[in-house]
Amino acid sequence: MPLTNKKASNFSEWYLEVVQNAQLMDYSAVQGCMIIREDAYYVWERIQNYLNQLFAADGVRNAYFPLFIAESALKKEAEHFSGFVPEVAWVTQGGNETLGERLALRPTSETVMYPVFAKWISSHRDLPLKVNQWCNVIRWDTKTLKPFLRTREFLWQEGHTAHSSKADADAQVKRALDWYKQLSEELLAVPALQGVKTEAEKFPGALYTTTLEAMMPDGKALQMGTSHNLGQNFAKMFNVKFKTENETEDFAWQTSWGVSTRLIGAVVMTHGDDKGIVWPPKIAPVQVVAVPIYSSVDEKKTALLALKRVVEPLLHKGVRVFVDAREGKTPGFKFNEWELKGVPVRIEVGLKDLAKQGFTLARRDTGEKEFYAEEKTVETVLKLLDEIQANLLAKAKVELEKNTLHVETIEQLKQAVEQGGFAVAGWCADGRCEEAIKEETGADIRLIPFNAQAKGKCVYCGSTAKTTAYFARAY
Amino acid sequence: MPLTNKKASNFSEWYLEVVQNAQLMDYSAVQGCMIIREDAYYVWERIQNYLNQLFAADGVRNAYFPLFIAESALKKEAEHFSGFVPEVAWVTQGGNETLGERLALRPTSETVMYPVFAKWISSHRDLPLKVNQWCNVIRWDTKTLKPFLRTREFLWQEGHTAHSSKADADAQVKRALDWYKQLSEELLAVPALQGVKTEAEKFPGALYTTTLEAMMPDGKALQMGTSHNLGQNFAKMFNVKFKTENETEDFAWQTSWGVSTRLIGAVVMTHGDDKGIVWPPKIAPVQVVAVPIYSSVDEKKTALLALKRVVEPLLHKGVRVFVDAREGKTPGFKFNEWELKGVPVRIEVGLKDLAKQGFTLARRDTGEKEFYAEEKTVETVLKLLDEIQANLLAKAKVELEKNTLHVETIEQLKQAVEQGGFAVAGWCADGRCEEAIKEETGADIRLIPFNAQAKGKCVYCGSTAKTTAYFARAY
Repeated sequence: MPLTNKKASNFSEWYLEVVQNAQLMDYSAVQGCMIIREDAYYVWERIQNYLNQLFAADGVRNAYFPLFIAESALKKEAEHFSGFVPEVAWVTQGGNETLGERLALRPTSETVMYPVFAKWISSHRDLPLKVNQWCNVIRWDTKTLKPFLRTREFLWQEGHTAHSSKADADAQVKRALDWYKQLSEELLAVPALQGVKTEAEKFPGALYTTTLEAMMPDGKALQMGTSHNLGQNFAKMFNVKFKTENETEDFAWQTSWGVSTRLIGAVVMTHGDDKGIVWPPKIAPVQVVAVPIYSSVDEKKTALLALKRVVEPLLHKGVRVFVDAREGKTPGFKFNEWELKGVPVRIEVGLKDLAKQGFTLARRDTGEKEFYAEEKTVETVLKLLDEIQANLLAKAKVELEKNTLHVETIEQLKQAVEQGGFAVAGWCADGRCEEAIKEETGADIRLIPFNAQAKGKCVYCGSTAKTTAYFARAY
Repeated sequence: MPLTNKKASNFSEWYLEVVQNAQLMDYSAVQGCMIIREDAYYVWERIQNYLNQLFAADGVRNAYFPLFIAESALKKEAEHFSGFVPEVAWVTQGGNETLGERLALRPTSETVMYPVFAKWISSHRDLPLKVNQWCNVIRWDTKTLKPFLRTREFLWQEGHTAHSSKADADAQVKRALDWYKQLSEELLAVPALQGVKTEAEKFPGALYTTTLEAMMPDGKALQMGTSHNLGQNFAKMFNVKFKTENETEDFAWQTSWGVSTRLIGAVVMTHGDDKGIVWPPKIAPVQVVAVPIYSSVDEKKTALLALKRVVEPLLHKGVRVFVDAREGKTPGFKFNEWELKGVPVRIEVGLKDLAKQGFTLARRDTGEKEFYAEEKTVETVLKLLDEIQANLLAKAKVELEKNTLHVETIEQLKQAVEQGGFAVAGWCADGRCEEAIKEETGADIRLIPFNAQAKGKCVYCGSTAKTTAYFARAY
């Protein structure tokens, strides 16, 4: 049960071990697929709730579109198709019939939704149209499965909007990216950087792609979410037109944006330690575990009675508390198990605590343990939950800064990338330099910050920099 | 926009028209699939919330299992496989590779989950195990698409549990069926009957299947949900074993149970009328629509100000209110549109109402309109929402009773079925009589009531009845 791998020395093995031992996932008989277990799915539900509230306030409504895409529809936007076709899974048989046309399992749903948007939209009064769906998507990746980060099926949300002007679409793209940053920092306690993708890295068929990028403890960047301005490209292919206020006709400006279950992997990587998961309290399936310590039936009764006095007010305040009164397991075993599972706060009560009329509180993030008088216990637990949430974000922010190096030469860039983290450098904006750097260092441009300043020279070719780019190896 | 078909005379056409005109669904380019639009998806989310609370209280936790099932796994339980294989869609290509083994898209997930349950369960201490998933399932039905009721892809929840005894599994099966009845009656206002399926109609691979059946206005039964005791059949095939308290080994007793997005169709059929949808208030996307009536800008301002005084307290109480202040649409147009969309209560305010310092309230279920003084308006709206919810259920209960006929001869049964509804009759419990009746009348046995009394003779063969059966044609 205790982890055999260390986060600092064996990051990749540690991650695989922790997600399985803590029962966040399990492997499936079908290669490249995984099971999202109960605790992980609970975190996903918290993410869903959080985003659904932001969506609703902006007038985005949830709906559901089919899994299947006719090959002919997927092919309509050529750049989009060629971007996705290497990873598409195809249904060719239904029951006993062989299908006349292969059906793609959606890798993303632009080509399912937009033919219907064309029916729904006729006037500027129908705009903006904003829908979102929570669903599974399929990308037949041939690389090794990495739980939560790379699987052939994963869950995500995809928001799709249509607007009457580029400016409106731009604003929607930014708004969605801001929701993701807020989600990432406020809920998941994972700090992340916003910016624009280069032409080479943008979404196939988009005008431009914006991205939210976090830095994992092994020095690799993780794309947390993306938000695309699709321009009028898809609208032209799928005939999404509207009558303007001046009675002219125009194509709609569209956006799409999404985050996926990979966020769960980001949380585990960012906050976990050698004992296991460390959940930020806001998403923890169990926020507080209460463990009675006893050596007789009577002592157990007394301990449980005492616990009840603090557990009930906590439950009443909506705190997710679990009282672990299991027989046949030692307190030490229970401590380890709940630490592995990432519970933020532990309440212990034994004879010593009872004698002093209080409880021992242990926090998962720092490991600190302290005794509190009974009348202070409930408020301290509540305060600790807030503190842990804030502390995890603050710690992760320090790491992010530490792992962001400004470099001026390609040697410095190589070294920075090798050591792990973002290398920030001037770039001439030529894709050939971008490609050459990728080839030589394994790092691509993760983002160009919004309002990036051009400073100094291109880190590769030495010509005048047109902008500043964040380079990193990535998941 | 107004419906051209009448519910009473043209039920099937009326249904197709209302679900599309009210924008609950749209057709997809892929045959047999449909789009679940925003209002319908909202209703699905209400169903999800309702069931999730019942599940959580029983210790059922949500998780997510892969869409893909290897053909070899699907084949393991022979009866299960032969039951589902005619409707399975197969993936044979992933990216550019042709797969070594075809992958089924889940028609249901027993064969995905139980190989993993075998890993998760080793001791009686691991039982009961209770998981649920909300997901899409695929059944390659060759019959015509019927929105919400018959589509090749649909959304559902499937609960799966493992227990240490048959009695525990029996109790879980019943508990799930009771949740569904509660959901159907309390939330959806659709009364429904519980009972057991015959051997011929049970879930492939189950020990027995229990069912919840409602009666649609056209006299056809609709299966609202099912709950199966799988016995140890799957456990034996997938090796789901546990060590008992006596240190012996036994196979787990398993259950599975589910409801799907077809429930949305049941609500539309049951409560809708010639003007459109009639949502029970508890699930209505918009519960109250407020329409200002005016002929000048000043009048509009005054009307909206007045509305604000009743809308704000309603919003404050959590009521979902929409103020329809759209320009360029007459009040009559708005009334029709919101009636089509099924909004339970309408608040109107025009000069006449303002002069009398009050509002006109119209209820969607009865069409009644009445004036209320301002100080009575908020409480009346709240009361109306409760009343409408209760009234819809009561009305549907009357219909259900009216459409349940006790018959003694095959001629009576034929007549009852022809006219539509449940025909209740004695049955010898011989599958040959069941089959013959189906052939001659198109009606199958929808359920055997729990604790059914054997009374009189078999309606078909005339031998002594062993039980009482509910016959009906069905969706």
